[in-house]
Amino acid sequence: MAVQTVATPTVDLGPAAALSCRECGHRVPLGPVFACEECFGPLEIAYDFSAYDTDKLRARIESGPANIWRYAPLLPVPADVADKPNLNPGWTPLVKADRLARELGVTGGLFVKDDSGNPTHSFKDRVVAQALEAARAFGFTTLSCSSTGNLAGAVGAAAARAGLRSCVFIPHDLEQGKVVMAAVYGGELVGIEGNYDDVNRFCSELIGDPAGEGWGFVNVNLRPYYAEGSKTLAYEICEQLGWKLPDQLVVPIASGSQLTKIDKGLKELIALGLVEDKPYKIFGAQAEGCSPVSAAFKAGHDVVRPQKPDTIAKSLAIGNPADGPYVLDIARRTGGAVEDVTDPQIVDAIKLLARTEGIFAETAGGVTVGVTRKLIESGALDPSLTTVVLNTGDGLKTLDAVAGTGLTATIRPNLDSFREAGLA
Amino acid sequence: MAVQTVATPTVDLGPAAALSCRECGHRVPLGPVFACEECFGPLEIAYDFSAYDTDKLRARIESGPANIWRYAPLLPVPADVADKPNLNPGWTPLVKADRLARELGVTGGLFVKDDSGNPTHSFKDRVVAQALEAARAFGFTTLSCSSTGNLAGAVGAAAARAGLRSCVFIPHDLEQGKVVMAAVYGGELVGIEGNYDDVNRFCSELIGDPAGEGWGFVNVNLRPYYAEGSKTLAYEICEQLGWKLPDQLVVPIASGSQLTKIDKGLKELIALGLVEDKPYKIFGAQAEGCSPVSAAFKAGHDVVRPQKPDTIAKSLAIGNPADGPYVLDIARRTGGAVEDVTDPQIVDAIKLLARTEGIFAETAGGVTVGVTRKLIESGALDPSLTTVVLNTGDGLKTLDAVAGTGLTATIRPNLDSFREAGLA
Repeated sequence: MAVQTVATPTVDLGPAAALSCRECGHRVPLGPVFACEECFGPLEIAYDFSAYDTDKLRARIESGPANIWRYAPLLPVPADVADKPNLNPGWTPLVKADRLARELGVTGGLFVKDDSGNPTHSFKDRVVAQALEAARAFGFTTLSCSSTGNLAGAVGAAAARAGLRSCVFIPHDLEQGKVVMAAVYGGELVGIEGNYDDVNRFCSELIGDPAGEGWGFVNVNLRPYYAEGSKTLAYEICEQLGWKLPDQLVVPIASGSQLTKIDKGLKELIALGLVEDKPYKIFGAQAEGCSPVSAAFKAGHDVVRPQKPDTIAKSLAIGNPADGPYVLDIARRTGGAVEDVTDPQIVDAIKLLARTEGIFAETAGGVTVGVTRKLIESGALDPSLTTVVLNTGDGLKTLDAVAGTGLTATIRPNLDSFREAGLA
Repeated sequence: MAVQTVATPTVDLGPAAALSCRECGHRVPLGPVFACEECFGPLEIAYDFSAYDTDKLRARIESGPANIWRYAPLLPVPADVADKPNLNPGWTPLVKADRLARELGVTGGLFVKDDSGNPTHSFKDRVVAQALEAARAFGFTTLSCSSTGNLAGAVGAAAARAGLRSCVFIPHDLEQGKVVMAAVYGGELVGIEGNYDDVNRFCSELIGDPAGEGWGFVNVNLRPYYAEGSKTLAYEICEQLGWKLPDQLVVPIASGSQLTKIDKGLKELIALGLVEDKPYKIFGAQAEGCSPVSAAFKAGHDVVRPQKPDTIAKSLAIGNPADGPYVLDIARRTGGAVEDVTDPQIVDAIKLLARTEGIFAETAGGVTVGVTRKLIESGALDPSLTTVVLNTGDGLKTLDAVAGTGLTATIRPNLDSFREAGLA
């Protein structure tokens, strides 16, 4: 493959030691590859953390910058990553959501991990930041992806800051607002005459062609690095809880990668002695209009049957989620569950979160809050335990979902009109 | 006035000792008043910082939370402010903008203070957070304001988190997107049949009426407290520079309050010994379509002649800026200047900042970056000195400004089409 020619044998990606197949364990050197040559299973990063002393590591993290690079010793990035131009995402607020807790009947402590505070206002900045470091390590000069939303902006912005070329592929008929959000960073934004599947097929073709040489597709040939960014959500949640594991986490499912990497991050913290080894439950959240993992969970299946997405939660609308089986395994192993909510329930949950905590979430945040409510009602989630709900994006990007929200009254500019409207 | 009935004689607002008239120095106890009873001059907070030891204060700040409450000892808030439910804004990135610096020819170090990272994505969260504490101290139960944009969302969100009622007044014919952004937090959002001036007149009427009892209008009867929030921009910039004053700052001008409070904050840091006492220059930035302060500066006037605003920079479109004369004084005293740019220059500057640094600014950020470029070209701003440019809001809120941005190419989903488009 053309991309392998740009791989160098001795890349410095900090504690990342090799790529390891999630299915068969086969190891290969670090490089821009994503599938096992033995069994076609997904490759992920294998680390060497053996030199770390727990107390020294904790102190090093706590004295680090207020972004994801405080966890550089646990990520596939060089030690000097914070000195390089990048968007420095992360260290977003973990909001103690007491008013939401009262509405939902949670008594054990409810927290919202609000990733809308990231530079381009979604969790994608976390994963793209890892892919950027891998791209630099492998000598790539173009950062690329296929996207219909958050990822396009995250890649465009990260490449702009780093001074790399970016080329983002989107369906040619995307809404104008989304096009603007991605185009403003000045990279190449290419419309593909076709649907999202056509865009993805074309990107895979490009990676295997000499024309794709020097191109880092963040979620394809750089996927093993990219995916590790989601571990930082687990690290931050535990550190912000005072180096404690939450009892329960509610995580949205698109490809399922985020949920599996959060589980990986929590297990790493336990293994490193940074948190006490105790049980935790991970719950997955989907929209009913794209709920292949939830359907499989409820049916007791180990495999996920693809669906054709039809939901307002576009950022979660992956009908054939690559990490679906791993998500099922984690939910079952930890005693969690996978649940889904309807589009109207998503909208209600967005409004509930905004009204109680002043957090305006995108549709994916409506999915997790809505699923949390449903899981409490069904008894699957224990309201007497510490619970963390993820909001992975910003309501400003999905304004259409709450377009029905409007003025509560219209009055003439005088006190009589004010009183007549019952506002006094 | 009705509002005075809810003022308590012994409010705890930390180091805030009294209100002091900016014009005649007359002092009155802390309360929800904003104009001097002697001369009608604006009241501002007078502090008692006499007990502070410099080293202990610095250490206390540095060990504080990663938000504005690290500066609680310097703000009109109770010492336990961080424990109360609020949006915890601030500690936004100070981005070393090396690529923008190269484009502008700045060699002395260029930084962008990016306030789009605040909870509702504008600097307004800083000022509303102060007003919220004052509202709690004075026993107000409704948080209110007149607004056409950023402030509406900031007030709605802050009140939601705090569990206060909010009632925001806007012109009834505002664009639907802006209505949604303000309405989603579930407070009362009242459309006034009239223009923005009518809205403001009505709010003043309401404050003087029994119907307004218990209402805190963040930028009217709580304005002395509210305005202090802008000092945190000065504090953060200096601390993020390693407790150093920048040589030059470029600050947008709407009412002019932000610029005057940044100057106040810098002077406080010098007086407290937290930074070295050395000269700094403050530059004000306006849009040509609303440039009353810039016009007065260039004409050598001490007073500001009101203008009728006509610019895409809506968040700066105050035709009769209350703090205009103070801005003129500061720009002249520090050796700065006030400059303005056209709407096309604002759009160009938004794109320049996005393309070089991956920061998508609202129109106000286009104004400061555009003015910086113009000031360098005219020689007013020295490119060999350390310069900080403020971005006070988020491009997602003013998408219309860059609506012309779009696809760089449209291709069919195959490699031949890709090559024909010259993308390889």
